[in-house]
Amino acid sequence: MADPQAVEALKSALRRLPGVGPKSAQRMAFHLLRRDRDGARQIGEAIDRALSKINHCERCNNFSEAARCPICASAKRDASQLCIVETPADLQAIEQAGVYQGMYFVLMGHLSPLDDIGPSQLGIDRLLALTRADAIAEVIIATNLTVEGQATADFIIDLMQPTGIQVTRLARGMPMGGELEYMDSGTLNQAFSDRREV
Amino acid sequence: MADPQAVEALKSALRRLPGVGPKSAQRMAFHLLRRDRDGARQIGEAIDRALSKINHCERCNNFSEAARCPICASAKRDASQLCIVETPADLQAIEQAGVYQGMYFVLMGHLSPLDDIGPSQLGIDRLLALTRADAIAEVIIATNLTVEGQATADFIIDLMQPTGIQVTRLARGMPMGGELEYMDSGTLNQAFSDRREV
Repeated sequence: MADPQAVEALKSALRRLPGVGPKSAQRMAFHLLRRDRDGARQIGEAIDRALSKINHCERCNNFSEAARCPICASAKRDASQLCIVETPADLQAIEQAGVYQGMYFVLMGHLSPLDDIGPSQLGIDRLLALTRADAIAEVIIATNLTVEGQATADFIIDLMQPTGIQVTRLARGMPMGGELEYMDSGTLNQAFSDRREV
Repeated sequence: MADPQAVEALKSALRRLPGVGPKSAQRMAFHLLRRDRDGARQIGEAIDRALSKINHCERCNNFSEAARCPICASAKRDASQLCIVETPADLQAIEQAGVYQGMYFVLMGHLSPLDDIGPSQLGIDRLLALTRADAIAEVIIATNLTVEGQATADFIIDLMQPTGIQVTRLARGMPMGGELEYMDSGTLNQAFSDRREV
């Protein structure tokens, strides 16, 4: 005997969220219907609103309500630097660190042939157009240090070569607070080969 | 620099789902807006539909679109047995095991004074009315073997005493496939004290 049809439909809809399997969906549906109908309403409304309002910034490709996002529209940012990140969350981590005053380009993913995500899904043509149109002195690659992130970085580095623009990557090595005892060998390798004179 | 307001609103709405923290909400919002706008639409619609259609069965308190759920409305079930469970998921686990043909009462939770969940939130008065009105020969307590589930069971057992109805509990002991080596001492204690002659 399954749950009523509307509950089953809610559970299967919730399973479209990343990381949500049948048991979590069941728990979420129960919670929303039993304990937090206000919350459910809020989620429904927030989805409607986001779907109708959110598009991509015409310049950096990040989510934006306006044609240009606040960073791209700001006169205070250094337009000679362009930092390439995978997702809006990566961009925010950098902004929160407060270390960077330049512009961004958000790929909204990484190269992943198995998921049919190639250069055109990542807006690489727009990235190239941007580097041609704007007076960019340095492209900073800040993709993740995962296999896909590294492949994406390599692809972009190759593309940038003919433009003559300086291309840099974030330093790779031991994270702050990291203990050698618990560090993986890939990180240790990188930390050794990129060691710097003091 | 935060995400656009509609994205922030979506993230904070998604955090009302149980087990979803800021990072998961971020990942979910990104996924819905970037990769699965259809899925987002589906979730919104399923929520609307469930909120408007789903109520509680007037007899067993389970979620139901009709006044009586299919189990309570069925003539094939044994109305002399009443199994008390905490949640619709528990009911479904029993139904899937295919071991029980009686009726249910769904508490929709357990006693939890800290969360302001007392007997009236669990519909205990309706449970009592049910045991008085119907010809019930046996009440089977099938709450979870957690601290709260056991307290709820004890409370209901005390309530049932004056009615003279037979009250039983699911057997407690080693789970099928369980290995003694990995069993907690509470389970082993129970398995020893409830051991049966072969």
